[in-house]
Amino acid sequence: MKEKDVEIGFILKLEKGEEVISSIASFCDKRGIRGAIFTAIGAVDNLQIGYYDSGSREYFFRHEDATHEVASMNGNVALVDGKPLVHAHAVLSRCDESCATIGGHVKEARVAVTLEVFLTSLPTPLTRAMDESIGLKLLAL
Amino acid sequence: MKEKDVEIGFILKLEKGEEVISSIASFCDKRGIRGAIFTAIGAVDNLQIGYYDSGSREYFFRHEDATHEVASMNGNVALVDGKPLVHAHAVLSRCDESCATIGGHVKEARVAVTLEVFLTSLPTPLTRAMDESIGLKLLAL
Amino acid sequence: MKEKDVEIGFILKLEKGEEVISSIASFCDKRGIRGAIFTAIGAVDNLQIGYYDSGSREYFFRHEDATHEVASMNGNVALVDGKPLVHAHAVLSRCDESCATIGGHVKEARVAVTLEVFLTSLPTPLTRAMDESIGLKLLAL
Repeated sequence: MKEKDVEIGFILKLEKGEEVISSIASFCDKRGIRGAIFTAIGAVDNLQIGYYDSGSREYFFRHEDATHEVASMNGNVALVDGKPLVHAHAVLSRCDESCATIGGHVKEARVAVTLEVFLTSLPTPLTRAMDESIGLKLLAL
Repeated sequence: MKEKDVEIGFILKLEKGEEVISSIASFCDKRGIRGAIFTAIGAVDNLQIGYYDSGSREYFFRHEDATHEVASMNGNVALVDGKPLVHAHAVLSRCDESCATIGGHVKEARVAVTLEVFLTSLPTPLTRAMDESIGLKLLAL
Repeated sequence: MKEKDVEIGFILKLEKGEEVISSIASFCDKRGIRGAIFTAIGAVDNLQIGYYDSGSREYFFRHEDATHEVASMNGNVALVDGKPLVHAHAVLSRCDESCATIGGHVKEARVAVTLEVFLTSLPTPLTRAMDESIGLKLLAL
C-alpha cells in the first residue's frame, strides 16, 4: 500500500495481491485512526460478497475468483474492542462484455491491478456495539 | 435515528422501520441544514426505485418488498420552497445467492437492519428550481 | 456546466448533451485543480463503460446509446503530463422496469437530463505514472 496525506484525508493505493478489508484496517490501526469513512474504485479478484440474513442471523457470502471492476465501494471504520473494524459495501462488475454487476457486503477481496481509496479520518472516534435485537455490531452513536 | 456530529459532517444511524428519504429530510429540516451531500450503506426493504422518463416526463418506480443490501447510495439535499428535498440514487442487491443488483432513483425505502449515513452539510445553501425544458426541479446554481 | 463553490468543494451541474469525463477534466484545468475526488448522480446516454483486461493489456468498452440512470459514480482527478486526467467508475441502470445495472470504468458518457457532481479539490496535487508491470498509468503517491 502506498499512502498520501492530502490534509482533508488520505489517498491510499492498494497494490495487486493485497487484501482490501484487512489492509484498510491495518492502515487505520497504524495511524491511530479511530473513525473514518471511505470510497474506492479499482479492480479485485478472489472476493467474498454477500448479505446479512436477519432471519438466520448469519451472513451469506458468494465467492468469486475472477477479476471484477470495483464499480463502487463505500465504507466506514469504527472501533470494536479498541481495534478498527472496516464495514464496506460494493458493486462489482464482471470483466466480460456483459459488464454485469453483483453487490453487497464485502467480507474480503484481493486487489487486482490497483485499488484507489479516498479515506477521511473523523476527528471523533466511532465505535460499534452488539445490538442483540439484530444480532450485529451496529454503530453506537 | 441516532445522530453524531463529527465536525466534518454527521454520522446518522437510521433504525429498522424508518423511512430513508423522509428521515434524512427531517434531520436536515430540524438542524437547519440547507444544502448537503451524503452516502449510505446498510439494508432496506419496502422500496421504490426507478427512473425519470424524459419522454413521458414521469417517473417510473419498481416496488420491492424484500430486503436488499444498500450496495451504494449517494445523494444530496437542496431547498425547494424553503424545505429540504432529498435526491438519492442507489444500487440495491438481492439477499439471495445471486447478489443481483438493481439501481436508480430512490423514491422511498424502509430501513431493514440498519442504515449508516455520512452526511456533510454545505456552508452555503443549495436550491432547486423547475426546469421547464426537462420537467424536473434541477439544482439552481 | 453550472458551477457553485461551496467552500468544502464544488457542486457542478452538467447539462443535457455535455460529455461527462471531458467536462470534469476541463473544469479542473480551468480552475487549476491538480487533484480531486468526486461523486455524481443523474442520467447519461451514449456511453462507453467497461474494464481493463490485464491479460491483453487493453480496455474493453461496451457501448450503450440508451439513457441510463447514474445509480453511482465515483472518481478522481490526477495530473498526467501536467494535465488533469479523470478516472471514473460507475453503476448505470436501465430506464425500463428491470432497473437492471451494468458497471465499470467510464470512458465517456453524455449527460441526459442532468448530472449532479460533488467535487472536492485536494490541497496537494495527485499525479499518475505508467506502471510497466500493469500497463496502466497508476496513481504515483
